[in-house]
Amino acid sequence: MTDRTTAPAGRGRGRRPAEEVRADVLEAVGALILSEGLADLTFERVAREAGVSKTTLYKWWPSKGALALDGYFHAVEETLAFDDTGDIRADLLSQLLAFTRLMTQTPAGRALLELIGESQTDAELAVAYRQLYSSQRRRLAGDRLLKARRQGQIRSDVDVQIVVDQLWGAVYHRLLIPDEPVTEDFARGLVANLLDGIVPASR
Amino acid sequence: MTDRTTAPAGRGRGRRPAEEVRADVLEAVGALILSEGLADLTFERVAREAGVSKTTLYKWWPSKGALALDGYFHAVEETLAFDDTGDIRADLLSQLLAFTRLMTQTPAGRALLELIGESQTDAELAVAYRQLYSSQRRRLAGDRLLKARRQGQIRSDVDVQIVVDQLWGAVYHRLLIPDEPVTEDFARGLVANLLDGIVPASR
Repeated sequence: MTDRTTAPAGRGRGRRPAEEVRADVLEAVGALILSEGLADLTFERVAREAGVSKTTLYKWWPSKGALALDGYFHAVEETLAFDDTGDIRADLLSQLLAFTRLMTQTPAGRALLELIGESQTDAELAVAYRQLYSSQRRRLAGDRLLKARRQGQIRSDVDVQIVVDQLWGAVYHRLLIPDEPVTEDFARGLVANLLDGIVPASR
Repeated sequence: MTDRTTAPAGRGRGRRPAEEVRADVLEAVGALILSEGLADLTFERVAREAGVSKTTLYKWWPSKGALALDGYFHAVEETLAFDDTGDIRADLLSQLLAFTRLMTQTPAGRALLELIGESQTDAELAVAYRQLYSSQRRRLAGDRLLKARRQGQIRSDVDVQIVVDQLWGAVYHRLLIPDEPVTEDFARGLVANLLDGIVPASR
């Protein structure tokens, strides 16, 4: 067992606090997925780039999928953060535009779709996907929507989790089954349709 | 070459019209997917059950995925048909309820999700999925929605293909990433949110 009093903190080969090591790993993984996607993401490479042992990685993340999803969640947390300008329409649209750009213009989009694809026949990955990524994204979107509901900007009888499926879920649908393109007009149409309804106002 | 005048039509081993053979194959494949899913769907079994040669099957369907999707499309055509009672709200809801039942209560649901999953890393299957299944389903839904738009039941500025993503796409999203359940209330919420909008009417 290492005597921690002899190991200098901070730089060097001393033992760093676990949370710091963990953050370094997640940062390395996130950067890799955003720039290259999943293909070259390996435990070996992450261990080398983050300066940790493979044993440590496997202790925290049992599979490449879990490692990828945890790193990805943290990498996009800021990009996908919700504004709170007080106007739910504007805030939803700017978040959706950031989300569609991320999914269509970085290698991360393809990576995420492949993880969703693989999770259809890999039960362990499906659990990791929900625990490390989608349930947290759902919660963040739900929080912003619930606040708007409390402020009277969304009808009080609306189930905000259904809204999540009708905005972000609709984008995932078009990405996973690309019969139609994911464009800025698409994002604007999603928000307009759902906020204003598609039946004429007079009805 | 078989002399068709010597081959009796109908039952027996004579040459049947290609369209009839094709319909028999699609029926056999569809029944198999609806009752058992994809696992035991093989060219051998379909050839045996539909009474055709494997060569014929491969001539028409280059892959198991293409065969499955074509059979599935035809098997669910009637179940997923759109009513036209003149009330788009009622017709959308009854179709969505039939769709969610099919996806959650028959082995076909899992089969379709696995095909979507596999198509994320199989470009040929992705093309087959769109050509043999999703683009046709999109067209059928679009036709019913466009009729409602012409009748003034949907706003004239609404892109009906975006509506497809916000109803059926929202269901696929919940099925593919099952953080939340696909229930009858979910289907009702989808229709209510989208038709009426989620902002208070007074705004």
